[in-house]
Amino acid sequence: MGLLNALSWRYATKRMNGQKVPSEKVEPILESIRLSASSFGLQPYRVIVVDDPALKAKIHESACQQPQIVEASHLLVFASWKTITPEHIDSYISLVAKERNMPVEELAQFDGMLKDFLASRTQERLSAWATRQAYIGLGTGLIAAAMEQIDATPMEGFNTTEMDKVLGLDKTNLQSVAILALGYRDTANDYLVNQKKVRVSKEEFFIYNR
Amino acid sequence: MGLLNALSWRYATKRMNGQKVPSEKVEPILESIRLSASSFGLQPYRVIVVDDPALKAKIHESACQQPQIVEASHLLVFASWKTITPEHIDSYISLVAKERNMPVEELAQFDGMLKDFLASRTQERLSAWATRQAYIGLGTGLIAAAMEQIDATPMEGFNTTEMDKVLGLDKTNLQSVAILALGYRDTANDYLVNQKKVRVSKEEFFIYNR
Repeated sequence: MGLLNALSWRYATKRMNGQKVPSEKVEPILESIRLSASSFGLQPYRVIVVDDPALKAKIHESACQQPQIVEASHLLVFASWKTITPEHIDSYISLVAKERNMPVEELAQFDGMLKDFLASRTQERLSAWATRQAYIGLGTGLIAAAMEQIDATPMEGFNTTEMDKVLGLDKTNLQSVAILALGYRDTANDYLVNQKKVRVSKEEFFIYNR
Repeated sequence: MGLLNALSWRYATKRMNGQKVPSEKVEPILESIRLSASSFGLQPYRVIVVDDPALKAKIHESACQQPQIVEASHLLVFASWKTITPEHIDSYISLVAKERNMPVEELAQFDGMLKDFLASRTQERLSAWATRQAYIGLGTGLIAAAMEQIDATPMEGFNTTEMDKVLGLDKTNLQSVAILALGYRDTANDYLVNQKKVRVSKEEFFIYNR
């Protein structure tokens, strides 16, 4: 399915039918997220993949009562870094050097630039920035799912503190910021399934050379 | 080009060759952004499309000295809403009613939910949320460009205050948050053009059922 068709086809599925999405469909969605754009290439977030029914039930009970949580096949929980430290940069620079087969010294300027970026921002601002990067991945995952004709629901309205506890993130540097539920639409019970997609007009959404 | 190939092909182009991207390539990129996912469907951002050389030169001079600004064919400036008010919700609800051909009264619950969402958050938090929504659009635009084999550079490191002045946004409810420069890679002068894409491994990026 082409991109424009996929974007028109997809919608924030409100009810899913519990059917399992096969791994040959899940894998390209995950790989798209991993390859998606990220400022400096840093990828300051991780994705928790939940397909265990007991864990989904626990999330449903304490962090997010929406029915898709248990009706979905997989939940992808986007979790961004709470803090970004010079050690994160060191480890990223090592990875770049290894992948590009170059001495770390050749990356000194890039390393300095990244550390200046950290030093000139509060941890709160860095955390907000990390979350925005996760949203690029979320947008990519939504598209990748639609192109595979897998339904998906992006979800923000959950109790992040509870979610972090359930997933054991509270003791780590990760914090949950959004969920992408993957599954199949329940056409009989989803009131949104036949509703027209509503978007502001081109004339209102785009502003030219202003 | 398929999605995974497009994601592998794209990179944050550092130098472009000044060639113009024809409108039949720009239009599907814009349309993809307009159709992209947005929480509640609200789309709390707009996109300023800049292809006027004089305006690009002005942006380059005062807001962002990176060479892509003048070497790109088009700049898409993502600008999110500074504040979100009940009037924004009213106008969105009217649009939904019109597009779905239903009386506004049928949307009373949705309207109330959206207004509760606003009322329970500070304007600062709403503005951060609006910016994250814009990043979903940015991620979509990056993918749409790659699928058309148009190069693109997502840019955050600009002076937003100056940018808002140059674009006349300072007197509006919009604030610039990111740029997507569209054009063609300058293969002779872009040091990044042949560098391997670096991403953390699947094993590190994904966490299963934790």
